[in-house]
Amino acid sequence: MPSGIGLVETQRMVVFDDDHPLTLASGAQIKEVEVAYETYGELNEDASNAIFICHALSGDAHAAGYHEGDDPNRPGWWDNIIGPGRPLDTDRFFVICPNVLGGCRGTTGPSSIDPDTGKPYGLRFPLIQVRDLVTVHRALLANLGIPKLLAAVGGSLGGMQALQWSIDHPGEIDGAVIVAASARLSAQNIAFSAVAREAIMRDPDFNDGNYYETGKQPDRGLALARMIGHITYLSEESMREKFGRRIQDAEVPRFGFDVDFQVESYLHYQGQSFVERFDANTYLYLGRVMDYFDPFGDPVRLRTQLAQGDTGFLVLSFDSDWRFSTSHARDMTTELRAAGAPVTFQEISSPHGHDSFLFDTSDYHRTVAGYIDRLAAAKG
Amino acid sequence: MPSGIGLVETQRMVVFDDDHPLTLASGAQIKEVEVAYETYGELNEDASNAIFICHALSGDAHAAGYHEGDDPNRPGWWDNIIGPGRPLDTDRFFVICPNVLGGCRGTTGPSSIDPDTGKPYGLRFPLIQVRDLVTVHRALLANLGIPKLLAAVGGSLGGMQALQWSIDHPGEIDGAVIVAASARLSAQNIAFSAVAREAIMRDPDFNDGNYYETGKQPDRGLALARMIGHITYLSEESMREKFGRRIQDAEVPRFGFDVDFQVESYLHYQGQSFVERFDANTYLYLGRVMDYFDPFGDPVRLRTQLAQGDTGFLVLSFDSDWRFSTSHARDMTTELRAAGAPVTFQEISSPHGHDSFLFDTSDYHRTVAGYIDRLAAAKG
Repeated sequence: MPSGIGLVETQRMVVFDDDHPLTLASGAQIKEVEVAYETYGELNEDASNAIFICHALSGDAHAAGYHEGDDPNRPGWWDNIIGPGRPLDTDRFFVICPNVLGGCRGTTGPSSIDPDTGKPYGLRFPLIQVRDLVTVHRALLANLGIPKLLAAVGGSLGGMQALQWSIDHPGEIDGAVIVAASARLSAQNIAFSAVAREAIMRDPDFNDGNYYETGKQPDRGLALARMIGHITYLSEESMREKFGRRIQDAEVPRFGFDVDFQVESYLHYQGQSFVERFDANTYLYLGRVMDYFDPFGDPVRLRTQLAQGDTGFLVLSFDSDWRFSTSHARDMTTELRAAGAPVTFQEISSPHGHDSFLFDTSDYHRTVAGYIDRLAAAKG
Repeated sequence: MPSGIGLVETQRMVVFDDDHPLTLASGAQIKEVEVAYETYGELNEDASNAIFICHALSGDAHAAGYHEGDDPNRPGWWDNIIGPGRPLDTDRFFVICPNVLGGCRGTTGPSSIDPDTGKPYGLRFPLIQVRDLVTVHRALLANLGIPKLLAAVGGSLGGMQALQWSIDHPGEIDGAVIVAASARLSAQNIAFSAVAREAIMRDPDFNDGNYYETGKQPDRGLALARMIGHITYLSEESMREKFGRRIQDAEVPRFGFDVDFQVESYLHYQGQSFVERFDANTYLYLGRVMDYFDPFGDPVRLRTQLAQGDTGFLVLSFDSDWRFSTSHARDMTTELRAAGAPVTFQEISSPHGHDSFLFDTSDYHRTVAGYIDRLAAAKG
């Protein structure tokens, strides 16, 4: 499907600076925060048609359209849901997507220059939490003159941001669309995260996170982390259909330790291409953001906070997702409802595992489109 | 449960040598093969009470009892099923367990000295297949004067050996007990295997497999491989019950990149302790043995081979095993039955995931004991 958006540019904005530093939930401060973001569509006069996209671990601000010089057939990562006539309809809505705090695609993160030292932060970048990502999102919105969102929409870590935002800042979001996410990582989720982290930190080129000026990066570790991730993003079934036991570029096995099966070749490619666009420290920080995420830790506060707002929730899961299976979505729904929030929950049938949130399964997109339409209609 | 076997010793035997080298299925040869093995119980006069244990990827010859100087409460890896009155009853049966070809616990493998060079083989050790492991098992039996087995029993890679043996050498095994195994790894299985292999081979200390004389071993890579393995050995449910989101040695999270959650600490420990007893090259070779395993590739041969023997099969799976789930066991059962073999198949309920084959779940042990008893009774 060709992009309906066309040519776009990533913009940049400093949202915290020396005079107004960012104070994190931990109390630590970051002196300067620049945000890379893209927007699609037009903000209406009363700024009531804004939809905010929160991206997942490896995402960025380039959600839709294509950049000058890029292949128009390889648009941003969520182009299939954003555009004229698409569920997030840019003929009607103003869609904003920033790179998150801690990121490596234009927004301040561990690879940014620490103004105190003139060198990249590395692991001196403070630990961050989902609520800190939200703080930066809100600062961007304030600068854009948008006091309230029609919707905050996100898959995986993106959904976690929409959830935390709805809880911490009542009255700012009409509808939170939380797709393939979790309110609390399981032991198995944390285990996969731990192995990915160890892969990066044990890479000798990691150099305690100070690899930016050494001419070497922990590419082996980061590629491994990405490979492990990809196994959890696909369903067993989709892997079977996609690769089976087929051998890459040959009829018979080569019997050796090199890449031989197609699934090995796929993972290898995913790992290698990832290191060209992603920073290992960002992977560590955002991985840890997910591990520690626990927005329902205090049920009394949860109820009080939600009662102050009027946010509705659309919680979606996919039946083949074993990273954040439907049980995560169901638990989230139960806890939100117990705290008094209106929640529409649906499990969507899709073969693509956790990655389903990136596909345009018709049930999924129809459900999102219908929900957004109802939010817009309620607003009048 | 204390060991019923008591003190045992590992024995060693050269089963192939310069005059009678081992010819592998690939045609390659290994000049000298020594096998480390243990036996429990007594061989009867007509050598008709022998039960052969095939171990899994990280196992060894020390299946039961304890070694001089060891803690008697930490017996061999399958002590709960082997011993007087246990399912593999050493009052009645002669139980043999060798370390496999390619291993690193006494049997010739990549860490052994290549007689041609006087140095450890490393990756010059030839690629091996399950049928080669069986060839060495059979040579050991021939040397022990045992022409036929009452049973060959194994979990995971062990079950694969029992299966291949039954197909390739009709008439040598009365009953093959195949537990938590697969006749054909899935794309997801191969994917996990690939990531583990890359973790080892990308470790700078791997040195193309020639690390034995460098004073450094690819410990980081091997530990990572083991950590990844352990995630697949436990069920999500057992991980949740065992660890949940609990923090190690503290009440509140420390918020950092060090080990913090209990599940991280567990994996870390498993990784570290593994490198002290296991060789990275062996991990690579035996991992690849599993990837390429495909004993049902030729259905005509399968039927012909099975028709020549009278081996019965007990195929067991565990409902919480997601590494080799029940569908693997069911496929194996279907294909064996289609080829005319008598198969008893049972899915056992057990919470321990793939590792269930090492636990003494009563349904499981009762089923094995009953099957072995029937084999012995049929023999008279």
